[in-house]
Order: sequence, then C-alpha cells, then structure tokens
Amino acid sequence: MFTEIEGDFLSGQKISEELGCSRTAVWKHIEDLRQEGYELEAVRRKGYRIKTIPDKISHNEISLGLKTETLGRKIHFEDSVTSTQKIAHQLAYDGVPEGTLVVAEEQTSGRGRLSRAWYSPKYTGVWMSLILRPNLPPAKAPQLTLLTAVAITQAIEEVTGLRPDIKWPNDILINKKKTVGILTEMQAEADKINSVIIGMGINVNQSLEQFPEELHSIATSLSIELGEKVNRAELIQTILMKFENLYQKYLQHGFYPIKLLWESYAISIGKRIIARTITGTLEGKAKGITEDGVLMLEDDQEVVHYIHSADIQIGSD
Amino acid sequence: MFTEIEGDFLSGQKISEELGCSRTAVWKHIEDLRQEGYELEAVRRKGYRIKTIPDKISHNEISLGLKTETLGRKIHFEDSVTSTQKIAHQLAYDGVPEGTLVVAEEQTSGRGRLSRAWYSPKYTGVWMSLILRPNLPPAKAPQLTLLTAVAITQAIEEVTGLRPDIKWPNDILINKKKTVGILTEMQAEADKINSVIIGMGINVNQSLEQFPEELHSIATSLSIELGEKVNRAELIQTILMKFENLYQKYLQHGFYPIKLLWESYAISIGKRIIARTITGTLEGKAKGITEDGVLMLEDDQEVVHYIHSADIQIGSD
Repeated sequence: MFTEIEGDFLSGQKISEELGCSRTAVWKHIEDLRQEGYELEAVRRKGYRIKTIPDKISHNEISLGLKTETLGRKIHFEDSVTSTQKIAHQLAYDGVPEGTLVVAEEQTSGRGRLSRAWYSPKYTGVWMSLILRPNLPPAKAPQLTLLTAVAITQAIEEVTGLRPDIKWPNDILINKKKTVGILTEMQAEADKINSVIIGMGINVNQSLEQFPEELHSIATSLSIELGEKVNRAELIQTILMKFENLYQKYLQHGFYPIKLLWESYAISIGKRIIARTITGTLEGKAKGITEDGVLMLEDDQEVVHYIHSADIQIGSD
Repeated sequence: MFTEIEGDFLSGQKISEELGCSRTAVWKHIEDLRQEGYELEAVRRKGYRIKTIPDKISHNEISLGLKTETLGRKIHFEDSVTSTQKIAHQLAYDGVPEGTLVVAEEQTSGRGRLSRAWYSPKYTGVWMSLILRPNLPPAKAPQLTLLTAVAITQAIEEVTGLRPDIKWPNDILINKKKTVGILTEMQAEADKINSVIIGMGINVNQSLEQFPEELHSIATSLSIELGEKVNRAELIQTILMKFENLYQKYLQHGFYPIKLLWESYAISIGKRIIARTITGTLEGKAKGITEDGVLMLEDDQEVVHYIHSADIQIGSD
C-alpha cells in the first residue's frame, strides 16, 4: 500500500512524444487519473507530477498470504458496484461455494439494515459481502450478526490496536462513533437456510472531510481515530481469519462461546437504553443477550422484554 | 380455452402460394407448430389439417375478470423460463410490490424443496411464483406453506369438484398421487422477512403418457383424475382469490384459523407415519400440527417429537 510518492515532473510534450498520442489525449488521461483518485501537480514549464496515488487494493493483495481454509478462497473483486450485497445475492442464488467473498472499491448505493443508505466512497473503506451456507434454521441467523461483530472487532484490535465497542445488534463504534455496519441477510426455504449473505461496511481511511457534514458527529473512520492510514487488504485478511475461527467454533459448539466473546465487547450491557422497535419504544436497563442473541431489556417495573430488532440509544450507566 | 377444432384440409401448395413462401418453408413452419403443441394431420393429396391447438393461456386470460385486490395485480407472464422462482427472486430483490405473480407456460429447470427437480412441461400445468411481503420474522415462513396448500386445495375443489388431500408439509395429493408441489422461499434480514416467494407447481392437463415412466405410480394430473381438461387460467384466478382471502385472515388473526382449515384437509393426521429428516428417521403417529405449523409425531414410547422439515411416508390408520 503506497499513498504519497515523490514523482519527477514530466512535460505534457514529453509524455505525448513518448506515448505517441496528442496533447489533448494526454490531458484527457491526466483527468482520468484525477477521477480515479490520483493527486497530480501541474506546474507551468515543468509539466505534471504525481503527488499521491490512490490507496487501491487488488484481488491479489487480498488473496496472497490468506491463510483461511474456506472463507475468501473465491473472491469477486470489483472496482465499482451498486452494492456488494446485490451481487452476492445473485451469486448465492446461482450456487457459489461457501466462503465466496464480494469486495468492491466503491458502492454507489450501499445500504444497511431496513434499506437505509450506507455511504461507501471509493478507495477508503472495506465494502464486502461474505456468502455462508450453514445448515441451520432461519431463526438462528441473528446469531451470525453477533459473530460477525466479534470477528471484525477482533480484527480491528489486531491490525490497529484500537479498542472498538459493539452496540447491539449490528454496529461497531470507536469513541462512541459509528465505524462499522453489518447487514445479515439470507435466502432460505421455509425451514432451512440456503445461504446467509453478510454485508460489512467499514470506514477505514476516510478523512473527516470525506464524510457528509451530517455524519461528522456520529461517524468516524479507523484512520481518523488512529492518526494514520490502515492497510485495507491486511484488514480484510485478518477479518476472514478471525471469522473462520469463530464460525468453526460456532458450528461445532453452538452460540455459547460466541456469546461470551460478544458480551466482552458489548457497550450497552448494564446501561440504560432506549430501544426503538417497529411496534414502539421501550426504555430500561440492558440486561444482556439470551442464548439465541435476543436482547433483554428490564423496564422500570422490572419486567424483562425480549427484543429481536431495534435501534438502540445508550444512556447513562 | 379451446383444444379440439375441426379444421379444413389445406394443401402445402396452396399454403405456399397464399403465403408466398417455398414448400420447404411451409414444412418448416408446420414442424414449428408441432413443437409448440399443435396436433396436425397430414393426408396425401389433401394436405394438412389442424386437429388440436395447444391449450395456451395468456396474460389477459389471467388478468381479465380477476377480482383480487393485490395478488396478481401485476403479472409477469413468460412462455418458457428456467424456473419461475428464479425470476421471482430477482424481481423481489429489485423491489416489486406484494402480490406480483410470475407465470410461465414451461419451466426447463423447475425445482422443489431441497433443490429436487420438478417436471414442468409446456402448456399442461400451472407453474407460478407469488411474491409476498409480510411484516413477519423469518420463523413464521413455514405457516405460509400451509396457507398456500389450503388455498390451492380450495381452488381445485371449486374448479374441478375433486377432493384433494394435503400431505404435510408441502404436497397436495389426489387419490394418493402427487398433484401439487409448493416451495416457500424467502429473502430476509436476520430478524425480518423482506419477501416470501411461493412457488406452486400444479399438474393440470397432462395425460399419463406425458409423465416420465418413473412417476406413473406416484404422480397424477387434475385432468387424469377428472377425465376432462381443466381451464388453467380459471384455476389460477381461483387460487389467487382463495389465497388473498386466507392471507388477509392470517395477517389479521394469526395462524389459528388457517390451522383449522389445514387440518380439515390433512391426510396424515391420526395416521402412522415415517418421517425422514436430515438427521434421521422417526416412526410413529402424526398427532397434528402446533400453532406454529410444526408437525407433532408421537413415537411408540409415547414421546412427542416436533418436526420442522421431513419427507413423510403415510402408513395405516
């Protein structure tokens, strides 16, 4: 991963001679490079110089050195997609093997839970979808959201040294700001999962200016928190390794070992929360999660409510 | 719906003159008609005569006079598809409205539960997929399989006067032979159904010879049992009407009223059955279904087993 380089100046004349194309064509290619994220300096009489090259990743950077057995052994790598979930859904329906991964440098209409938009600008994040084929009933799928949160949290810790918190059910926060979103979807028969498609959106190398204004107070990236850029290919590899480890544990021993790990990272447990569900709003203390991954909220009358899905706002301890 | 007609003989020479094409072209078109299901008589010196025209249906035949509010208000009608489920999955993902119906005259790779093949020859059956968008958790999806079975059974009764039996979970039999298969699939988030895609395969007008040899003893069609052809467009309309009625009842009052209707048609309840599941084989008495649509089997030690998914073989009373 290279970002800043010290290129020599090269005149447009020289470029056009060496490449055997017109000055207009040179200018057009320079503009294309700018569109792709290259930062170019143009100085009169000296010519052009590359200042920074975009922080791209490649299929090979992810594949080479990847030590997993099944996850990411097959990678669909794309420069720009509408959403990696959409592509993964189609691949899953067409029968690709477990572990197939869709990675894109940019999503033009990435989305999260309940079809909410997810902002995924080019060359800055990890936007990917992982296809699994566990032999489980559909009711177990929420457990995989929690497993994914643990895998990503462990990977971020290992790669950056940062200490993320998990907010039930599908967010990862750093310093209370949203850094990661997880979207677990499935294709299933009435009583059997055919495929689970786990979308992961990780803000990695955005600067604060690269976030829309309205997200400044609620979202962040790993590089903002760390103060330096993070190698995205290494992060992807580490997530796949952590994920495979947890997933094998889960298939062998069930959800309990995952639940313990999840609780060790969970920010909301023990705190007062407000849970907004489709049917209404509940307020009380987050007691923990059940063996099935369902959130237990104890209200002020000490009645425990079981919450399958909600937006959570965390209050005081 | 027309099937037999009394056409006049028309010589190949006459046809080629009237249409201004070669005799070879006439012969080729005659072959095309045969491929499409027309039955043609060719008599020396007299020429060709159409004996029967294929029993096609059209988008209009289904739409005109359809009295539903939402189901089938939008119909994708195709002559030949790989499978209506595949098309419906894509439409569902792209956000078509609830009630959208995919109907095809032929499926070249129709399939049933657990990816088993479903034989769907041209112009003889009802091969269709209905898209629903209920606001339900994924665990409720099996109830919709049972609801669908009731809707189809009621429609067959009304259109043909035949009396079908439902075999848990997804077959409808007439005289103990399989006539209808149902495949309930879904696209869902971990805790919320995005769409349910219900595939229905109904053997309507096949003659016994049109079934593969190995299915003769276990499958049948409505026309074989009735002794006459059945109007497929009318059957589709009646299914949609019955379905909408039951579905509205279900969304308002839950599964209980559907459960009672389902039990009134169920062939296996009270009988000795063998249930082959993914994990093993159970034998005992079918006690009924739970409020959730799960089959209860009481074995010879009077232990009740709850079965979510299985192939059922029905024994004696």
